[in-house]
Amino acid sequence: MMSKELYRETCKRALEYLDKAGIVVTDKEKNNMEVAEYGLGEVEKIGLELIVYVNTDRCCAKELILFPGQTCPEHRHPPVDNEPGKEETFRCRWGKVYLYVPGASVQNPKAVPPKGREQFFTVWHEIELNPGEQYTLAPNTLHWFQAGNEGAVVSEFSTKSRDEFDIYTDPDINPAQSRKA
Amino acid sequence: MMSKELYRETCKRALEYLDKAGIVVTDKEKNNMEVAEYGLGEVEKIGLELIVYVNTDRCCAKELILFPGQTCPEHRHPPVDNEPGKEETFRCRWGKVYLYVPGASVQNPKAVPPKGREQFFTVWHEIELNPGEQYTLAPNTLHWFQAGNEGAVVSEFSTKSRDEFDIYTDPDINPAQSRKA
Repeated sequence: MMSKELYRETCKRALEYLDKAGIVVTDKEKNNMEVAEYGLGEVEKIGLELIVYVNTDRCCAKELILFPGQTCPEHRHPPVDNEPGKEETFRCRWGKVYLYVPGASVQNPKAVPPKGREQFFTVWHEIELNPGEQYTLAPNTLHWFQAGNEGAVVSEFSTKSRDEFDIYTDPDINPAQSRKA
Repeated sequence: MMSKELYRETCKRALEYLDKAGIVVTDKEKNNMEVAEYGLGEVEKIGLELIVYVNTDRCCAKELILFPGQTCPEHRHPPVDNEPGKEETFRCRWGKVYLYVPGASVQNPKAVPPKGREQFFTVWHEIELNPGEQYTLAPNTLHWFQAGNEGAVVSEFSTKSRDEFDIYTDPDINPAQSRKA
């Protein structure tokens, strides 16, 4: 797990992006910020900072923060307990994010997969999301995303989040490896 | 139904509040803004402006705009089709909103119900929401809300919206009376 010091630095930096986006969060939310580093130990490249606003049995809303070029690695949300898997809408609030899903591959992708892990990025249909733009992902759809040069703040609206069931393409990833406080 | 002219003026004014809140929406969303006036013909007092980001079978996200003192009248979201009714989280993004739900009544409420319709506001447990503050409402719970002196912008995260099933306390209200473009 990442050190407490790195966790704190990462949170502090993420809060600067929320400020840039004009998004207000409470002190409690700041103190509960989650940093996903997937057990890979290179959070600046492969990682995600998030504030979970609500996550009930029926729906969930989060704010995702991505540093410049930071990547959320390829994964899908499978069916669990007779439910069809998590459905997600990503809405860019600030900055720019490149989202990749199954479909016709882009010729010259704007995002660059993290070095040494290219083989674990297999879907290449590119969707560029600028502020105010959004995309709704059907359950169990492979996807990954990377922020542009300035970073990004993205609102996620979804059904219940159960991160422990997520399936990542990269076998080295431990989806439970995120740190909260 | 409200005139096209009033609809347009109301939308234009609502967009100014989104600007103040730093929330970016697309031109398409601007053009699809919904103004709920409930068939009462006094939208500045009893009404709501909204942009629906997503509304699938499973979840929904909206931005609600309230002018200073504007009121969303008391209603609840009943069970429909074996589902327990809409669950809603209101998150204040800008301004201030007073939300009223069942529970211990406040002695000196900050909101004032619209004149002549006081009897249709029956729940008086007061929740004040400032930017970054939120409240999650269980399905089928009576609620109403009113913006403070500066107005408010509120994100709503919820299960599927089916406004046509909403039950209002005020018998004069027609929940289907909202205008889109």
